[in-house]
Amino acid sequence: MKKDTRLILALDLTEHDRAVEIAKDVVEFVDAIKVGYPLVLASGLRVVSELSRFSPVIADFKVADIPSVNEVICEEAFKAGAEAIIVHGFTGEDSITACVRVAKTHGCGVFVVAEMSHPGGFRFYRSRAEEIARLARESGACGIVAPATHPKRIQELKASSGGLTVISPGIGAQGGNPSQAIHAGADYIIVGRSIYESKTPRTTAMNIRDEIKYCSASMMKKDHLNHQR
Amino acid sequence: MKKDTRLILALDLTEHDRAVEIAKDVVEFVDAIKVGYPLVLASGLRVVSELSRFSPVIADFKVADIPSVNEVICEEAFKAGAEAIIVHGFTGEDSITACVRVAKTHGCGVFVVAEMSHPGGFRFYRSRAEEIARLARESGACGIVAPATHPKRIQELKASSGGLTVISPGIGAQGGNPSQAIHAGADYIIVGRSIYESKTPRTTAMNIRDEIKYCSASMMKKDHLNHQR
Repeated sequence: MKKDTRLILALDLTEHDRAVEIAKDVVEFVDAIKVGYPLVLASGLRVVSELSRFSPVIADFKVADIPSVNEVICEEAFKAGAEAIIVHGFTGEDSITACVRVAKTHGCGVFVVAEMSHPGGFRFYRSRAEEIARLARESGACGIVAPATHPKRIQELKASSGGLTVISPGIGAQGGNPSQAIHAGADYIIVGRSIYESKTPRTTAMNIRDEIKYCSASMMKKDHLNHQR
Repeated sequence: MKKDTRLILALDLTEHDRAVEIAKDVVEFVDAIKVGYPLVLASGLRVVSELSRFSPVIADFKVADIPSVNEVICEEAFKAGAEAIIVHGFTGEDSITACVRVAKTHGCGVFVVAEMSHPGGFRFYRSRAEEIARLARESGACGIVAPATHPKRIQELKASSGGLTVISPGIGAQGGNPSQAIHAGADYIIVGRSIYESKTPRTTAMNIRDEIKYCSASMMKKDHLNHQR
């Protein structure tokens, strides 16, 4: 997954044709497309294959089963063309490593959910999130998922993971903000409803891409100045 | 779901025709069929519709997303013919109630995972399982999932849930035992690999059904004797 626009489009809708149309429409402004179960259940796994022809696809299956079942789920996702998969951390080390093992045989990656972006997600995740972020690193995952709704957590969890790539959902409809997430250390931000429910998905995606670009540039400038001092 | 054989067949394989064949073969010995993502990803959601024509289907999707996504996943599962769905408890109250709300509009049920049956599952689940079992009751779920690999936990978690229906996986391949699980208070036991990897799935299912029947009868007899004293 190239780190160019740093924007990931989340397609959490169920209409196959609309999903593919929006994906094609915004593809030049995103680095990857995140596809979850709503679309896959409604359209079948073929939608992953279809989308993977023009963009890297992250299968957001929040895999959370026992190791033997996790393996099969990952195998199906990668066979269909996904380049990475999102896996829950709460199910423990053996469940995560089962996914990483399968991912590696396909040359693919695993992102581990370290904390979630919705209110209820904090109740059980929050107190163990740092431990899960460390576990992600130890298990050989390529990155973690940390919530843009609480930017400080992005920074903290990235540190706990030993600097793994952070992808960050919760932007827009859930209240998170692209600049804050990027400033906090997110490598990629994930935007769904704000783009696919927009009347002009392409313009919206472009504007978010520009906001990220501006934010990244100003951070680089600041770093450069600090370095010169 | 009638409480007759108290046995649930788990179909965690990916071959559509074999899955349907095994299901038909053992259907008279089971009260429901549990279908997870391995089969659904490989065959599409139509397999749920197909199986639901001759048995109640529990969609074992271990739903674990934010509330708005959970709603869509449940909607798809129930529309396809599932009678109940399995949902993770660690994603918090709003994620669970989103599922219960959708289930109720379809006259269907939600089982909440209170604890898992694999080794890694204990690390994060164990210390919060009682709280999740109570949350299942408060959220209007119809039951909980508790591990047959640790029968004492079935008893403890059933109590914490205020006596909700307990379905219990981890029998056979994972080390759990039908009689112990039933004695501990499981209402239904879930068996997968021991049946579908058996050379004679029908005989295996029948034998497990008989073991449960014998165990239930001896428990009733004991209760009756205690009552007479």
